[in-house]
Parts: sequence; C-alpha cells; structure tokens
Amino acid sequence: MHEFDFIARYLAPLAGTEALGLKDDAAIIPGPAGLEYVLTKDVLVEGVHFLPESDPFLLAQKALAVNLSDLAAMGATPRFYLSGATLTHKQDEAWLKRFTEGLKASQERYNFTLLGGDTTRHEGPLMLSITMIGEVPVGQALRRSGAKVGDAVYVSGTIGLAADFTHPRYLNPEPRLALGQKLRGIAHAAVDVSDGLVADLEHIAHASGVRIVLEGGVIPIAPGLALEKAITAGDDYELAFCAPAEVAEKLGATRIGHVEGGSGIVVLGPEGHPLTLTKKGYTHF
Amino acid sequence: MHEFDFIARYLAPLAGTEALGLKDDAAIIPGPAGLEYVLTKDVLVEGVHFLPESDPFLLAQKALAVNLSDLAAMGATPRFYLSGATLTHKQDEAWLKRFTEGLKASQERYNFTLLGGDTTRHEGPLMLSITMIGEVPVGQALRRSGAKVGDAVYVSGTIGLAADFTHPRYLNPEPRLALGQKLRGIAHAAVDVSDGLVADLEHIAHASGVRIVLEGGVIPIAPGLALEKAITAGDDYELAFCAPAEVAEKLGATRIGHVEGGSGIVVLGPEGHPLTLTKKGYTHF
Repeated sequence: MHEFDFIARYLAPLAGTEALGLKDDAAIIPGPAGLEYVLTKDVLVEGVHFLPESDPFLLAQKALAVNLSDLAAMGATPRFYLSGATLTHKQDEAWLKRFTEGLKASQERYNFTLLGGDTTRHEGPLMLSITMIGEVPVGQALRRSGAKVGDAVYVSGTIGLAADFTHPRYLNPEPRLALGQKLRGIAHAAVDVSDGLVADLEHIAHASGVRIVLEGGVIPIAPGLALEKAITAGDDYELAFCAPAEVAEKLGATRIGHVEGGSGIVVLGPEGHPLTLTKKGYTHF
Repeated sequence: MHEFDFIARYLAPLAGTEALGLKDDAAIIPGPAGLEYVLTKDVLVEGVHFLPESDPFLLAQKALAVNLSDLAAMGATPRFYLSGATLTHKQDEAWLKRFTEGLKASQERYNFTLLGGDTTRHEGPLMLSITMIGEVPVGQALRRSGAKVGDAVYVSGTIGLAADFTHPRYLNPEPRLALGQKLRGIAHAAVDVSDGLVADLEHIAHASGVRIVLEGGVIPIAPGLALEKAITAGDDYELAFCAPAEVAEKLGATRIGHVEGGSGIVVLGPEGHPLTLTKKGYTHF
C-alpha cells in the first residue's frame, strides 16, 4: 500500500476540517487576535532520513529545517516547536551538547522557541520527531489548492543538490521562510520540494484541479545531474509555487512552466516532447 | 546524566516562557477568544514502553491516552493531535486498519480530531509519537506550582495496577479528563502519575516550594502489591493533586496526605515512621 492510499483510506476519516484533508504541508487552527496557527510534524530516522554518525549540530538543524520548510510553504512565521527523540547509547553528553547547540542556532536565526517534548533511550536507531508551530494572519496561509489556469510556475534555488548525500544542501537544508512569507497574497498555490519537484507539483495539480506543464530545459538543476534524477530526487526544501507571472517576477525564483486546464503534470524535454518519467518522487513509506 | 539534568542544562535554555520551564505536564500558548492551548508530546517505543505484538487497537489508544493524561493534569479539554509513526514490515494493512480503529475509538470517546503527522517505514522498532493539543479558559490551567501549606493531597483511582504488564490499566490506561476539568478552580496543583506516585508528587513539592507528606496506609494500592512497588512503579495515569480539603472531598479521589512547609516528599509507613524508598519512580532516559 502506498503512503497516500494509507492516508486517504485510514487517516483522512480521522481528520477534522483543520487538517485540510491531510493534503497540505501543514494544518491550520484558530489562533489569537487575527492570527492562525500552522502546525506540522515530521519524523527523521537514522539510516532512512540521515546517515549514522551525522554531525549532531547539523542533524538538529535538519530536523528543524524539514519542518520549517513546511511552514515556509504555507507562508507562516515560525513560533514554537516540540521535540521527541529516541536516543541510543551513542548519544553521550558531548553529542547532546552539540545537538542542542544546533537547535539553538536555528532558533536564533528564525526566531522561535522550544515548548516541550519527550526524550527517551532505546537500542536504536536514533529517531527525531519535531512538531513545529507557526502563525499567519487569518486567511493568508498559502495552500496547495489555489492554482489557476494561466498561472506561471516557479521554483526557488537549485533542484537536485541534495541528491548528493554529502552536499551541504542535504546535510543542512535552508528553509525558504522569507520567500514563503513574501508569497502571501501573491502565490495562488505553494508547496515545499521534499518528495521531488515533479511529485510535489503534482500535489498542487491534484489539489487545484489543474494541469501543470514544466519546461525541463529551464528548470535550475544541480550541475552534472541528469534532469530526471534532479526533478525526482527530493530533499531539496525549495519552494515551488503557482502565481500570475506579472506579480511574481521580482521574487528571485525561476519560472519553470505554466498551469493549464486538465489534470496531472507533464515535463517537456529540451525539444518540447513530454518526458516519460520512471518515477515522480521519493517515499519512505 | 539523568533526564532531568539533561532538561535543565541543555533544553531549558532553549525554551520560551510558554514552556513553563519544561517543568509541567504540558506547555501553554495563547488561543482564540478567551482560550489557551495546552500542548504535550510523548514518544512510545516498542520494547521500552509497550510489548512487541501488542494489540494495535489498544496500542493506538495507549499512545493517545498517555498524552490525554497530560492534558487531564492541566485541566484541559482535548481538541487535536498530530501523529508521528515509524512502522516496520510487521505492520501490514490489517494492523493499520485496527490501529486506526483504536485511534477512532479514542477520538470519539473524548471528542478530538487528527490534524496531521508523518508515517515512515524502517527496520524497527515500531515507534509512535503523538502531539496532543487541548484547550482551557485563559488562566485556568492546572499547574504543578500552586500547592499551598495546609492543602490536602489526593489521588484518583488505584495506584500500581499498571505494574502488572498484562493488566488492562497497563494496556489501556484511562486518562482522567473529566476529573481534571472538574479540578479547575479547585486544585492548587495537579500532576498525572506517569513516572510513579512519589516521583510525580515530588515534582509538585519542588515546583511549589513545599513539603508533601503521604500516609502510606491510606494510599489506594493494587491488591497484593507491596506499598513501595505500587507508589514507584509508574504508568498509572491517575491524577494526584493538592487542594483545600473542604472543597475537594466530593470529587471521588482518595485523600492520601497533606502539604506542609519545607521541601521534598516523605511517605509515612503504617506505624507513622518515614519509609526509606530505594527509588522514587521510573525513567526511560
């Protein structure tokens, strides 16, 4: 069973309206005075999402960054997080010190604080589960479901860098929080690129009831990487979004395609023919 | 290093005021219109917190219950949760179906809904991380820090039942949500009994700057269990609280001691002499 089938069949019936059908980057609940809270939770497991012996400073930042990236995709400002960790005998006090220094560096850079959590010990593997809470003005969260026919499609940064597990973008992804907040009121739909550019934009196409056409030749991919590998590798934590071309040109993202009527996603090769992709993205389920 | 040293030395500096010094059962953040949100997160690991081959229906309920119990200790009403799970190859579709039925049963009983989360697969062990969100009227959350000299000390239910890993209270603890909500405006301090009655009431004594004296002979313990074992075994998920005797008598809890000036906690044996406890509670750190 695919992860999305499990979600649709067994988890979606458990969700309230605040969960947005479990189809977006995060959930939205009412907040104080003109604000809404945006909540997301990701789990990272040693050997699955990060290499054993990872630098605990970078690992702490990555565990936060993958969640901050979900907030970025919703246009939210980070406020709080809760931390769940199952440690092993390998995480001694020196490791814990460096790990919490990594948490602190990220907190200070993006201005949010620890709310609580739970730390336990077991045989292994090391597992980290972060719940991140941000805020947005009421009604201004970016969603996956608003893309409109005629929108241009954009992506931030370079896609595929994280396909190299030793690249700084894999070890230390940079959540696009400032861009996400600028996109409030501009982007019709947004997503963070975690599963792979094609897979994540397909979520927008599906949620919005539109067809997305990408021009493979203009997608900003990592040097030396094949196009198909770059756009399906995942772990980029860039933002992809759909917006009117005339208002989005100054945001520093690259225009990579357009939205038209229909469904699904197609990537055109250098000569304008649709590419046949052997897979669209990456799943750990 | 003990878990509480790790929290005090490395995590407390990362926490904002909303985290209540990481010393309470949950954190409190502003909510909408006269409400505050209460947030808590617990991690359960196969082989540490539950037995392999546990019934997935009961396991789902237990993963929620240990978090609901934290809300009960704060007097909060459950609203939402996020679920993090690392599954193994043993969790097939039949398992997932029964697990989500367990989630649904608890949601329907206590009236809260799923907000989101993350499910991934790895070699093992099975790990479940729940973030639970409740609400209370502003300023009415129960805390650990308000116990007053002269208060009586109470506990709900029976202590020590969960020391038997095959007992229904271990497999399917019942969070004392209704009691917790009734204690708003009555209890000066409350805690849920997860680490052990003595260890958890010691948290209240420490947070409140008082001394707690328990009368061992009147503590309602499981039949056939030694007193020391019962009051240090943990996993009870009953509520222990401090309140004026005259207003708390009708709540169905058992009066087990009193609060006086000083610090720490003492348990008096059947003849009125302080017991020497070899340990006060249980930790998985």
